[in-house]
Amino acid sequence: MEVSSLSYAEIKLLANVLRGLSIDQVESANSGHPGLPLGCADIVAVLFCKFLRFNPKNSKWPLRDRFVLSAGHGSALLYSALALFTDFLSIEDLKSFRKLGSGLAGHPESHLLEGVEATTGPLGQGVANSVGLALAAKLYGARNPNFTGYRVFCLCSDGDLMEGISYEACSLAGFLGLDNLILMYDDNKISLAGPTSVCFTEDVAARFRAFGWEVYTANGHDYREIDEAFQKVLNSGVAAPKLIIFRTEIGYCSPKANTHEVHGSPLGKDNVKVTKINLGLDLEEFYVPQSVVELVSQVKAQKLKQASYIGSESSFVYPMVADITFEEFVRYALEITSPEKGYKDASRNTGSKMLEYLASKDQSIVGGSADLEPSTKAYLKGSSDINSSNFLGRNIRFGVREHAMAGIANGLALSGFFKPFVSTFLCFLDYLKPSLRLSALSELPVLYIFTHDSVFLGEDGPTHQPIEHLSHLRSIPNLVTFRPSNPVECAYAYWWWHKSKSKPCVIILSRQSFDQSFYDKDLTHLENGYSKLISCEKPLLTVISTGSEVEVAFRAIKQLGRDDIDLFSVFSFELLLEKSGSLRDIFQSQKIVFVEASSLPSSVKLFLGAMNKTFYFYGIETFGASGSDKDLAEYFGFTPDKFARFLKDILEI
Amino acid sequence: MEVSSLSYAEIKLLANVLRGLSIDQVESANSGHPGLPLGCADIVAVLFCKFLRFNPKNSKWPLRDRFVLSAGHGSALLYSALALFTDFLSIEDLKSFRKLGSGLAGHPESHLLEGVEATTGPLGQGVANSVGLALAAKLYGARNPNFTGYRVFCLCSDGDLMEGISYEACSLAGFLGLDNLILMYDDNKISLAGPTSVCFTEDVAARFRAFGWEVYTANGHDYREIDEAFQKVLNSGVAAPKLIIFRTEIGYCSPKANTHEVHGSPLGKDNVKVTKINLGLDLEEFYVPQSVVELVSQVKAQKLKQASYIGSESSFVYPMVADITFEEFVRYALEITSPEKGYKDASRNTGSKMLEYLASKDQSIVGGSADLEPSTKAYLKGSSDINSSNFLGRNIRFGVREHAMAGIANGLALSGFFKPFVSTFLCFLDYLKPSLRLSALSELPVLYIFTHDSVFLGEDGPTHQPIEHLSHLRSIPNLVTFRPSNPVECAYAYWWWHKSKSKPCVIILSRQSFDQSFYDKDLTHLENGYSKLISCEKPLLTVISTGSEVEVAFRAIKQLGRDDIDLFSVFSFELLLEKSGSLRDIFQSQKIVFVEASSLPSSVKLFLGAMNKTFYFYGIETFGASGSDKDLAEYFGFTPDKFARFLKDILEI
Repeated sequence: MEVSSLSYAEIKLLANVLRGLSIDQVESANSGHPGLPLGCADIVAVLFCKFLRFNPKNSKWPLRDRFVLSAGHGSALLYSALALFTDFLSIEDLKSFRKLGSGLAGHPESHLLEGVEATTGPLGQGVANSVGLALAAKLYGARNPNFTGYRVFCLCSDGDLMEGISYEACSLAGFLGLDNLILMYDDNKISLAGPTSVCFTEDVAARFRAFGWEVYTANGHDYREIDEAFQKVLNSGVAAPKLIIFRTEIGYCSPKANTHEVHGSPLGKDNVKVTKINLGLDLEEFYVPQSVVELVSQVKAQKLKQASYIGSESSFVYPMVADITFEEFVRYALEITSPEKGYKDASRNTGSKMLEYLASKDQSIVGGSADLEPSTKAYLKGSSDINSSNFLGRNIRFGVREHAMAGIANGLALSGFFKPFVSTFLCFLDYLKPSLRLSALSELPVLYIFTHDSVFLGEDGPTHQPIEHLSHLRSIPNLVTFRPSNPVECAYAYWWWHKSKSKPCVIILSRQSFDQSFYDKDLTHLENGYSKLISCEKPLLTVISTGSEVEVAFRAIKQLGRDDIDLFSVFSFELLLEKSGSLRDIFQSQKIVFVEASSLPSSVKLFLGAMNKTFYFYGIETFGASGSDKDLAEYFGFTPDKFARFLKDILEI
Repeated sequence: MEVSSLSYAEIKLLANVLRGLSIDQVESANSGHPGLPLGCADIVAVLFCKFLRFNPKNSKWPLRDRFVLSAGHGSALLYSALALFTDFLSIEDLKSFRKLGSGLAGHPESHLLEGVEATTGPLGQGVANSVGLALAAKLYGARNPNFTGYRVFCLCSDGDLMEGISYEACSLAGFLGLDNLILMYDDNKISLAGPTSVCFTEDVAARFRAFGWEVYTANGHDYREIDEAFQKVLNSGVAAPKLIIFRTEIGYCSPKANTHEVHGSPLGKDNVKVTKINLGLDLEEFYVPQSVVELVSQVKAQKLKQASYIGSESSFVYPMVADITFEEFVRYALEITSPEKGYKDASRNTGSKMLEYLASKDQSIVGGSADLEPSTKAYLKGSSDINSSNFLGRNIRFGVREHAMAGIANGLALSGFFKPFVSTFLCFLDYLKPSLRLSALSELPVLYIFTHDSVFLGEDGPTHQPIEHLSHLRSIPNLVTFRPSNPVECAYAYWWWHKSKSKPCVIILSRQSFDQSFYDKDLTHLENGYSKLISCEKPLLTVISTGSEVEVAFRAIKQLGRDDIDLFSVFSFELLLEKSGSLRDIFQSQKIVFVEASSLPSSVKLFLGAMNKTFYFYGIETFGASGSDKDLAEYFGFTPDKFARFLKDILEI
């Protein structure tokens, strides 16, 4: 069922129309990247006509092959292909390229446009997403014998292959033996700023072989070579991912071919004209000749037939996902922790229990850690490790590859089959941030479990101690952060993730043990992201805290023995902001103290200073230090004594 | 001059004392990593005794070889070696390991302790630092024929080699042909969470050969093999970096040898005892037998002699650095931009001129971009590109390797010879953040130039548009951020970097053109990080803005035609916070509006809400969008009209 009836000459016609449509998009937007579309149209045309399994009428067909454009700057080519080969997009739509309100974003966005399999543009991400997508097919296939799987075709540039994330992801893909992953490298020897010879001279084929991949090469403008490369790859039978190095010419057939100027700037009217003449295209903008329309109809009809032959969604079952009510979840949390009896533990342990419980109910949960399983405790003990001979496992051993971990998790989520979690230390959020940002932008409900959440992790010192990370996370749009201070809040955080369909979330947990026995009996507060832990009639001062610092605040207030201070644990500021109508309903006092072992942006600190006597922040302004958590608590002022003194001073102002 | 008089048996005695001192440190701190020190002591002992050139009395000797422990969790071994082989540290000092106030931090910190060449711990960083250090020797040697250079010996773990940054850095090192770089891979087949066979099975030797490196292997516990490997490497004569794969046993000679449990937890008293017996060591803590003291004296004497033979600082000259006064700089800035005549340009172009000017005065400035030279404009036009046959150049073509770029810049700064700048888009700060954090933590005056600083970069869309990045940067300790709105502020930012000795800084610049013609004639304000652009007698409302949004604010206020609104460009909040005694001297009105195309942390937004009617933030809460900068300005409300309407509403409250 792979064979298309089109001749190479016919496919070439289509390829050139893809080229024309792509440069017309760039020209009409007066912005964009003509280089890759001109260079890769032949490869993409052969792929779409002869090899890629897709349903032109259903972008969600679960068995479709995934085409991921990791070199997202070539978006115009992807949109051209979707407009030509599917019903998701019309030729007319192409005119909205890069314009406000259009789904044809500057770089492809999966949540904006049908047929876009991954949000790409930040280089290397699509490669990691593809590893995740390919892994998802393997995992799902192991669980559902009726699921015949799909292949992932990822088109990447030299920029993608220079990025660290691509090495990490490809090294892991080699370990996993993902033979359904086909990476198509657009080897045009030119990057944005010049020839790759100025800095990128590694032997890419040897590198991929070192990772355990099979490597093929082909001239990306020779149809026989392209065709044969795909056939060899798809028939290799070796349980390894495949790289095809396509030697291409950037800006092919344009006057700027083979220069870096054609990478990312419009060709200009005159050059467009010359290019179209070189390609034998009509000069009219966005023009598709009738002969091509007919060829495309043939292709679409064949694809539809192939899709219905291969199977539909109904031929296999999704993993069992039990719907858990929040009441159940809280009941469980209270049962296993018994806060009433004085529950004291690290919140990473509390979180671990919640994850285990959730995973026992929801079989679509898979995930792992970047070589920190014993520390983050985010490991499904009842399940095995995933490897090339065990795709039935649920634990992914990512290795010390935080960035690929998050990029692969995005791919797992994009597959539609799995709900992934990942974990590392909060400080190492920095290593994976570009992918986390894309979880948020692409509306993927990935769970990030970050433990060792403050200087109180102790002796490992400032290189491992987060300071700016909470402010950083809370500034990212479409991301929900949780820093629970007790099992009930922790349960809520995991339950929220269980329910989330389009937002990633971060659960932030401590390494050190603390008293988690205070909680708010009024569970209705939870959906607003807070617990009221000390309540008083007429508060003069409100203390707000999160995570392990809640205990410090609680003890400080109790020590003062006053009845005009109330205490809130705001375990999710995003929920509170979203849900509460009036914040004054919650904070009724004139003075507010926010205590947390983190920093605020200097911009904000400036204004806090200007608004003295109403709002105080009790945090940490410097990097951490190496020492025991007790010594550090003294040093940074996070003891009940020191914080009580601070509160007293404020009350006396 | 490489030969030591010690026999293998004698060096082994020293190695075992290093082991004993290391596990004693971990035991006394009840925290730390015994696995690597036990595994690598033989390699380190041979290196220090026979090959490493150092001056035991002068940690700053410029010609010393650099020993970088990229696997920073093995810090106890580094401290043991410093205590044994140098005067920088005493055996007594080792007792303060990982205790508050000690220079013996959990992971080594270069600014805290003499003899620590780089701050390591976050994995992969030391590898990139080493590339920078090795490059610095090459660059400096090309400039100073009398400078005989140094070698960089970097000890790394499998964790280091799994991290993307190490691939990026090693790929570039291969391109640069850094034959003075020797990477020693502690191949013990065990990482924190288990055997590397669970996820890291790539052929490391083949990978490095693909990068253009020479690769050697040796048994890391066989003295003859270790010795011969170093000799081969140092005599190879091939202009390529070298990898030695040392096959070792983690936790060597301890009861937990060859398990992941020995990686990062104290052995425990009983196991320490058994280990010491296995090693033939005295059981007393921190014990160095007299025989070893005498051997060490021999080594130190030889090293001193070698150092004085090789040469001292005075035998070569530092690059010429002219001291530029701020007045000169501003005069230049005003001259070439003529704001009085209406200067309108992208601030990336303004910044580019300042960088060129500074670099013409300070020859120690070198740097580059992550394949975005044509976009960030951070390129020294009068200088050539650096490559293996041209170390006289000043432009480093980093390729699309942001993370390695920043890590290498840290290495260049650590060398003491160069003042590096790097550049990329602000959004891709995310790709290099772990290294930027270490610039700040290690007090390295690296300049980060981030352009394309807001949604107003336009059509490239949300994947490229920073939102949370300003809040993120401003939350990082010991980092100064600048977002200038005119040539004078821009000049100040570059001048500040020129003067900086121990703080990195970030200069944030626009892609789009804007009116940069307003500036504050009172230049004394600049050192406080602000310009007063509209002044009034009795302000009712103060508007604060930064960068390109200053123009919007300026026009909005002028449009309102009122004389009770003043306007400040706060181009550096850190400077303002640090320098100003009372913020009320600056902001005299009751209401403050902060307008900037960025987001604030949700925690802060909550409190702003609670303090309504005094402070308002006019920013962006969502991701950006693809479109022209004009359309985006309308959409996000950043036009003079829309902002004027907002101000009017506030004034009417």
